[in-house]
Amino acid sequence: MYVPSEALVARALDGEVRAISRLLTRAESGVAEARPALDAMFRHAGRAHVVGITGVPGSGKSTLVAQLAAVVRRGGRTVAIVAIDPSSPFSGGAILGDRIRMGELGGDPGVYVRSMATRGALGGIARGTLEAVDVLDAAGFDVVMIETVGVGQDEVEIATAAHTTVVVSAPGLGDDIQAIKAGILEIADVHVVSKCDKPEANRTVADLKSMLALGLSLDAGTDPAWRPPVVPTSAYEGQGIDAVLAAIDAHRTALESSGEIARRRTRIAERRLLKAGEEILRDRFVRERSGHIQVLIDQMLCRTLSPHAAAVRLLNELSLGEEA
Amino acid sequence: MYVPSEALVARALDGEVRAISRLLTRAESGVAEARPALDAMFRHAGRAHVVGITGVPGSGKSTLVAQLAAVVRRGGRTVAIVAIDPSSPFSGGAILGDRIRMGELGGDPGVYVRSMATRGALGGIARGTLEAVDVLDAAGFDVVMIETVGVGQDEVEIATAAHTTVVVSAPGLGDDIQAIKAGILEIADVHVVSKCDKPEANRTVADLKSMLALGLSLDAGTDPAWRPPVVPTSAYEGQGIDAVLAAIDAHRTALESSGEIARRRTRIAERRLLKAGEEILRDRFVRERSGHIQVLIDQMLCRTLSPHAAAVRLLNELSLGEEA
Repeated sequence: MYVPSEALVARALDGEVRAISRLLTRAESGVAEARPALDAMFRHAGRAHVVGITGVPGSGKSTLVAQLAAVVRRGGRTVAIVAIDPSSPFSGGAILGDRIRMGELGGDPGVYVRSMATRGALGGIARGTLEAVDVLDAAGFDVVMIETVGVGQDEVEIATAAHTTVVVSAPGLGDDIQAIKAGILEIADVHVVSKCDKPEANRTVADLKSMLALGLSLDAGTDPAWRPPVVPTSAYEGQGIDAVLAAIDAHRTALESSGEIARRRTRIAERRLLKAGEEILRDRFVRERSGHIQVLIDQMLCRTLSPHAAAVRLLNELSLGEEA
Repeated sequence: MYVPSEALVARALDGEVRAISRLLTRAESGVAEARPALDAMFRHAGRAHVVGITGVPGSGKSTLVAQLAAVVRRGGRTVAIVAIDPSSPFSGGAILGDRIRMGELGGDPGVYVRSMATRGALGGIARGTLEAVDVLDAAGFDVVMIETVGVGQDEVEIATAAHTTVVVSAPGLGDDIQAIKAGILEIADVHVVSKCDKPEANRTVADLKSMLALGLSLDAGTDPAWRPPVVPTSAYEGQGIDAVLAAIDAHRTALESSGEIARRRTRIAERRLLKAGEEILRDRFVRERSGHIQVLIDQMLCRTLSPHAAAVRLLNELSLGEEA
């Protein structure tokens, strides 16, 4: 049954789960018909605290997210989770699903969990992730957590989409502090060291702290007035989870009292604008691939035209102005 | 001393190391003045076998690359390595450098090693990486290896830039097969299991093989006529490195005899065209940020304009046609 956008938006704004789910599916699909509803949700969003949670594979992110959601609920706030699946970039299908571990939160209407498959888009995090956050934000969830799998580009984008970024490190994953190797040390507003029941964890905590003391984290990506804390946790005993939430909330308060929140919102808006522009370009490219783009490709294959020169021609030929 | 582009191109095509290094620096810088020289190198490229080598942090990629380069040299071919540094996405500076481990290859003029910092560009692999490959290819290196650090978006792009993609897995890194968790299982043309001196390695090899037998790898990203082999290696004893090179060469032969190489070249050209278009867009965005883009950002911040609607206006206002 097709539900018109306006009805769906009204129901999602009321927090109706089925309407929210449909809008998320539309966000994920990226179809043009989804645009008016998603734009409407964007206009109603802006109240939730958006928290990005990241770390290398095996660091225990999913467990942390589930435990954190439970603690947020216990404090009386509602929480939505967007988990980006470790799916294949080419097949588009999820092989493993972290959502299984979220099961314990199942019956609670104050928790909403959504897995999104990465689509192998060139742009990093899954298409529709940011629109999904808008939907959940506008639907009234107090906290929206984005959990990303893997390291690298995805995480950098998360840091520019979230108000607070949590980077999870685990002891004994081959490198002492995986965040460095992965280039994500500096995007952390809060560091979590998981698996602190392991004896090696003390060293990971100490290493992180001395690294931070060296000032590696004080750059353009973070608020100079905020010192990222290092919070040890243990999933088995659920230890430290309250402290993680306290650190996240303290960061939010700091953002607001320093005025940094405005700068962060501006940065998020800039990134989203650029990303939306790239998506329009990509859509056009896919749509018009069979046409004169093939001529450009052929010239590149003969090496008579460089990618840059071909792109300049492409942008002209696409006459992007039509889209308005 | 400024060397004009034509002179630099001529010298680089002759394989002169200083000229090559300068062109790579220009590729990395992304400045408009670099364009003619890089376009010229692109037109002369197309002969090298481009090999992407990837895997999660700690999997032993760098060691494999160094040992592989030595084996390529022993066989009489020249080799260039582009290593993408685990640098901070925000500071732009490399924290650790894998190039240190490449030291043993230092004195040999048939080996060229270049580290490139990732720049936190939204587009995945470091800006200039593909142009760097063009330069090294045109300069006459027989094999060009791209080593990427981390997992995720970067690797997917590598798979669309390389003729042969090698995915390295190591036993005991927390997940059984990191390639699955990282979503990169299916981009592999050759699987390498490193650290096979460890007893757990047998299971990693067996798991990978049964996974491949399940057909998980047979999708649009790979040649259906090619079955990705699983090659066990051990860096300590240098074992299996010859077998890795043999697998890479066999893949190249298979690509050529099946005609898949043409399809792969087309895919690379398509991706590069799109990427170049996005780069032009990004450059314009950065250049014109202070102007009327601020008006769009402000409307997004008030939530009166969605990112998509703002992007449509931006693309119109940028009047991209001028660039031609």
